[in-house]
Amino acid sequence: MPPDDQIPTHTVGQRLERLDARAKVLGTARYADDLTFPGLLHLKVVFSTEPHARVRAIRTDAARRAPGVRAVLTAKDCPGENLIPLVLPDLTLMAADRVRFVGDPVAAVVADTPEAAHDAARLVEVDYEPLPAVFDVLEALRPGAPVVAPPVSGPGGHGGANTAPNLFNLLEVKKGDLAAGFEAADVVVEQEYRTPYQAHAYLETQGMTCVPEPDGVFAVYGCMQCPFYVHEAVARVLGVPRHRVKVIQVGTGGGFGGKEDVPSIIAGLAALGAWHTGRPVKLVLSRKEDFETMSKRHPALVRLKVGAKEDGTLTALEERLWLDGGAYATLSPVVLYRAVTHAAGPYRWPAVHVTGHAVATNKVPCGAFRGFGTLQVIFALESILDELAERLGLDPLDLRLKNAVRVGDALGTNQALTESVGFVETLERAAEVAGYREKRERYKTWQEGPKRRGVGLGCLLYGVGLGAKGKFIDRTGAHVQLYPDGSCAVSIGNAEMGQGLRTVISQIAAEELGLEFGKVQTFDGDTSRVPDSGPTVASRATVMAGNAVRDACGQIRRELLAEAGLMLGASPEELELFQTWARVKGAPERRAAMNDVIARAAHARRPLTASGFRLPADTWWSDDEGQGKAYEVYTYATNVCEVEVDLETGESRVLSLTAAHDIGRAINPTLAEGQIEGGALQGLGFALTEEVQIDQGVIRNPRFATYIIPTAMDSPELKAVIVEHPYSGGPYGAKGIGEPPIMGIAPAVTNAIKAATGARLFECPATPERVTEAMKSQGVAARDEVTV
Amino acid sequence: MPPDDQIPTHTVGQRLERLDARAKVLGTARYADDLTFPGLLHLKVVFSTEPHARVRAIRTDAARRAPGVRAVLTAKDCPGENLIPLVLPDLTLMAADRVRFVGDPVAAVVADTPEAAHDAARLVEVDYEPLPAVFDVLEALRPGAPVVAPPVSGPGGHGGANTAPNLFNLLEVKKGDLAAGFEAADVVVEQEYRTPYQAHAYLETQGMTCVPEPDGVFAVYGCMQCPFYVHEAVARVLGVPRHRVKVIQVGTGGGFGGKEDVPSIIAGLAALGAWHTGRPVKLVLSRKEDFETMSKRHPALVRLKVGAKEDGTLTALEERLWLDGGAYATLSPVVLYRAVTHAAGPYRWPAVHVTGHAVATNKVPCGAFRGFGTLQVIFALESILDELAERLGLDPLDLRLKNAVRVGDALGTNQALTESVGFVETLERAAEVAGYREKRERYKTWQEGPKRRGVGLGCLLYGVGLGAKGKFIDRTGAHVQLYPDGSCAVSIGNAEMGQGLRTVISQIAAEELGLEFGKVQTFDGDTSRVPDSGPTVASRATVMAGNAVRDACGQIRRELLAEAGLMLGASPEELELFQTWARVKGAPERRAAMNDVIARAAHARRPLTASGFRLPADTWWSDDEGQGKAYEVYTYATNVCEVEVDLETGESRVLSLTAAHDIGRAINPTLAEGQIEGGALQGLGFALTEEVQIDQGVIRNPRFATYIIPTAMDSPELKAVIVEHPYSGGPYGAKGIGEPPIMGIAPAVTNAIKAATGARLFECPATPERVTEAMKSQGVAARDEVTV
Repeated sequence: MPPDDQIPTHTVGQRLERLDARAKVLGTARYADDLTFPGLLHLKVVFSTEPHARVRAIRTDAARRAPGVRAVLTAKDCPGENLIPLVLPDLTLMAADRVRFVGDPVAAVVADTPEAAHDAARLVEVDYEPLPAVFDVLEALRPGAPVVAPPVSGPGGHGGANTAPNLFNLLEVKKGDLAAGFEAADVVVEQEYRTPYQAHAYLETQGMTCVPEPDGVFAVYGCMQCPFYVHEAVARVLGVPRHRVKVIQVGTGGGFGGKEDVPSIIAGLAALGAWHTGRPVKLVLSRKEDFETMSKRHPALVRLKVGAKEDGTLTALEERLWLDGGAYATLSPVVLYRAVTHAAGPYRWPAVHVTGHAVATNKVPCGAFRGFGTLQVIFALESILDELAERLGLDPLDLRLKNAVRVGDALGTNQALTESVGFVETLERAAEVAGYREKRERYKTWQEGPKRRGVGLGCLLYGVGLGAKGKFIDRTGAHVQLYPDGSCAVSIGNAEMGQGLRTVISQIAAEELGLEFGKVQTFDGDTSRVPDSGPTVASRATVMAGNAVRDACGQIRRELLAEAGLMLGASPEELELFQTWARVKGAPERRAAMNDVIARAAHARRPLTASGFRLPADTWWSDDEGQGKAYEVYTYATNVCEVEVDLETGESRVLSLTAAHDIGRAINPTLAEGQIEGGALQGLGFALTEEVQIDQGVIRNPRFATYIIPTAMDSPELKAVIVEHPYSGGPYGAKGIGEPPIMGIAPAVTNAIKAATGARLFECPATPERVTEAMKSQGVAARDEVTV
Repeated sequence: MPPDDQIPTHTVGQRLERLDARAKVLGTARYADDLTFPGLLHLKVVFSTEPHARVRAIRTDAARRAPGVRAVLTAKDCPGENLIPLVLPDLTLMAADRVRFVGDPVAAVVADTPEAAHDAARLVEVDYEPLPAVFDVLEALRPGAPVVAPPVSGPGGHGGANTAPNLFNLLEVKKGDLAAGFEAADVVVEQEYRTPYQAHAYLETQGMTCVPEPDGVFAVYGCMQCPFYVHEAVARVLGVPRHRVKVIQVGTGGGFGGKEDVPSIIAGLAALGAWHTGRPVKLVLSRKEDFETMSKRHPALVRLKVGAKEDGTLTALEERLWLDGGAYATLSPVVLYRAVTHAAGPYRWPAVHVTGHAVATNKVPCGAFRGFGTLQVIFALESILDELAERLGLDPLDLRLKNAVRVGDALGTNQALTESVGFVETLERAAEVAGYREKRERYKTWQEGPKRRGVGLGCLLYGVGLGAKGKFIDRTGAHVQLYPDGSCAVSIGNAEMGQGLRTVISQIAAEELGLEFGKVQTFDGDTSRVPDSGPTVASRATVMAGNAVRDACGQIRRELLAEAGLMLGASPEELELFQTWARVKGAPERRAAMNDVIARAAHARRPLTASGFRLPADTWWSDDEGQGKAYEVYTYATNVCEVEVDLETGESRVLSLTAAHDIGRAINPTLAEGQIEGGALQGLGFALTEEVQIDQGVIRNPRFATYIIPTAMDSPELKAVIVEHPYSGGPYGAKGIGEPPIMGIAPAVTNAIKAATGARLFECPATPERVTEAMKSQGVAARDEVTV
């Protein structure tokens, strides 16, 4: 346990109210579309209606002549590069000579009102020459398939390669002797699993405004997770140096990964409009536009084979994985990296071989989504482990307990785990809180009319931060300014998007400087205030931004303790902070209130403003060896789902969901629980109801009336359990919590359905139709022991 | 000469274009009144119409009922303190029970439109009980005078005391044995001089908007010199912690000291409106309101006695000085400090005794104005030195050269001068460029009809920065952020108000980091970006903000040189920056372009953002001894004015003005010359035309039609001469240049008029009426040698 954990804390660990709670409840919070500026113009995008076509001509004359139109722009109007910089240099701001999916931006109309822009956009005529299209990952990789993504070379280091047509990249994980592993197995199970698209369904659609300022700076305001991605993209699209672009993240009503990469496109288009008109230009997508054209979770095909000894000891895992990346690489290469490195889960495997493919098709590009490639492999792995347990006659919990990683073990990537491994405790705590064993037993015979109940498990580990493939962009900055009255303004480079980051950061700053919590303000992300702090993804913000804030606060604390030393007649080394006091170690009665210390330090003109900076702990990955220290540390979790299935309708109702997460340390337990609850609910949508209907590349249900996400009414009893195995590299021991809550929900649900019905779902969501079909095809119209 | 001065520079010292030049010329620059926000309301102030009265009642009912009115506010509506924090705690935001001058704010009306606010403000009825008023400084100090300013105690350290009624403070300077000095004199001259009000006449009137943001922050945007003064004032008026207030300086079309203190009132009123309505509130003064109610230059009465030996050696100076501070102390105590410490000028005096009084009267408060109390004492001193020279039969230039301070001498404050004393060189260079001696001789006999010509001198020194009485608030911060493409964003806490600060700061950052000048952006002042950097006054910005920027850049440069060392196979210590290259000292062919170094350093995730901080060199002042190291360093200047007077009309036309200034080092000679030219022209207004007509506390000419400032058409030939005696404590040797250009103009003009006409002006401006009257009263209808 690190020394940090032993420091008495006064705001860290407290259930403090979220700083933005009132503004959100009262409706005064500002989102992208709330912003207005004098002279504001509005932009409408003309999207491709073809899944794959050559663009012969774009006729804009009629649109240009339409009332209120200020500009009609196409790819050739980019003063800089027509490129959104991501892993591979393939994503255009607007398609130039070829469209790759239904939704590819082709032109943009800027007009005085949203209505004028909308009407004029319909006058833009695009002359397409259709090309053969491909929509399936296996077909896309066949020789002679239509080429969606020709080979390009990436910058390296991010996991991108794309050396073969339609193959964004291929990654392997290799550990031990696979043949020997299966040789040693008493039982081998082999299966194929599929997972679907998922839409982020953030409540706020993508939106950006770009304001040309008098001093030549393009200020960009909007909802986003990654201000620095947008910063680079806009500078490159406009062809201006970075200091001429300032990106301010506002509002952001949900991100979930969906505001990682695509905001660069939205901002690039708004900036292009501002460049050409010299006026502020706003682009906010309609729900339909957003749904049809913005990124999604990668559908996956997973073929899995596992072996175990009679006593349940796992011996080997072999997995082949295909992620459907859609028309552009965007983040697929790194999503694949996370998928393959997480494929073996939090278990001891003597032998592992995972082969993953990120594949191009003529569909909407898939990018980041909470979980980032892991839901797909976790659904497969946690499903097949239950199959294995059944074959071995073991309870699924016992199989997992037997093989769970502990400190000293190595993961499937052969990464040795040296600290902060709370997986076993999550298994035990989740089972205990959920009453797993008791219900497991009871539900064997429980029935009520056509209704049956079951309990299922879904476990996972999650590598916190960007890991070895993302380390080149992994760093954070912070700026902390303390005022003479003991209030404090903090700037970080990471985004508040509903997760409570600003609150957590304010708690950390208050803790570090001995301030009252209410006197710390953490600002919206602004690229001109702090250095590139990387993206707000991968559950890295609390750890990385928190550490940078601690670095800055440490510099200021040194000044404060020096001043306190003068007040208390002690050297700074003899002092410690305790709550809102500075005091002499070992003589707690010799103390000074930090408010007084700060006032005196300010009067003495000490520097009470500092820039902080932090790099993550080092990681590495060898593509050749298929091994490495993939991530610096892992979060572990166990979900227990209790489900009731109506055998007549196939409908599944989740009665309760217990989620135990080892997050190292909860800076604010209420917010951590909020993450767990929100993620669980989003996971239930993935598990049960959310299904993108796509046909020849056209999404047929691009609205909330037809794409069904859970509402508060659908929420089961949610029990969040926080387990704390502190991480020495995290602030106060914290690891990440943003992504894990969604990751293991689907298999917990389908394992529970299996327990209830005897039917295994090899694909989610577990819609009534699919449950009914599974029961029918697997010949288990009802569970064997029970008569309907 | 400091080592800094020997570093080869590539942007420092260059005549680079002002960064805001194009925006200002094209009309795209934004000023306070250009800003607009959704839901903006407008505020109108109800000002006192009485010079001194008790407020019996303020009836606001009718105003509240007027159309479009959202709030009518008076002193009792301040949620925090009804106080603008300055030197003494006497200035209210709005008068509560007593008004002290015509223009004291009494109430504020907030309405939907400026017109509605204006109309409703006329419905506010204030019931005054008039009190006896006093308008003259000597009368105000007589026993039994009406009490404008009752004694209050100041925070100390700022020169404020106000221990007697109507006496804001009293300060003395004492050096040597005054009686012995006059004893040793062969000639003694004694005179009384008066100087008038001067209005700042900035082109942009006072204006602020306060925007309540959803997160509880009050953002204040407007024109100002001192964002941190406004920051403190708004926080105190609203009674919120400092982190809840963010002040952003925009535009600022001229300040000249007039936007030092009063913007806190304007911002406080706007913030009060925003607090009560929850909406953005803007207050922009009309020209008439601004002229009538905002601060002015202190009128002064100066009684002076000087002695000298036959050979011109000065022996003693005795001076009594009264500054008319108006109704509130505002900055009068520190204006007086600068006046008394500068009273003896840049001359060696064995004995000095100066007694200064800052006095309260029932008139508009006088505050900061370019020169800050020095124009008054310089006018007196430089006039009497010419009188002395005449009595001694010496040329005024020779008298000054004989007594000019050099390195090793002590000032009238007994401060020893250790470096950077270029006064003699300014005397010599100004005389040479102006052709002083030749014209002085020629004009003795020159005449053309009723016209006569003369040449006159006006010299000065100026203590750079806040000095010993302001040191408690004297510090600066900076934030420098370098982007991977070699562009750079700089934040400072000081204000661009037309002087070119942002350009100069960008040059310094470019120089320090080896960047191209065009790739550095310096932002508008913003209190949330940098620590309290004190006011932008006292010619301190280039030195103080420049030094803070150098501190920040130095931290970044260390990282860059470490990276360059890896590239060049050398240790960082072996490297130097040369223009836009890093190179090995002594082996200049081993070099790397800084753009490459920066790109690599960014890729290596080095911290390329830093916070800088700087304190000034230490100073001290003893009120008891009347001595001290009053300022860390001084700027020196000599002005030579060539005038043509029409003896029939009394009209004076300035033919040429030569101004030589020792500014240590010109970071941008064009901008330094701009300061010299602008200051000289403003000085000519003070000398010749600008006269506030005030009657019973009412200003009778509050507009540009009747208060006559020079236009471009009135500009004589201006010759700016830059003299560089570098200062080791300034960036690249720079001292300050903002204020000195205005300071010595008036005596140069009146000394020239004396030379032309034989008539001495004991008061300025030298209007035709006053020149005619002087000639008449002094019996010199024309110069003796010349017949009209």
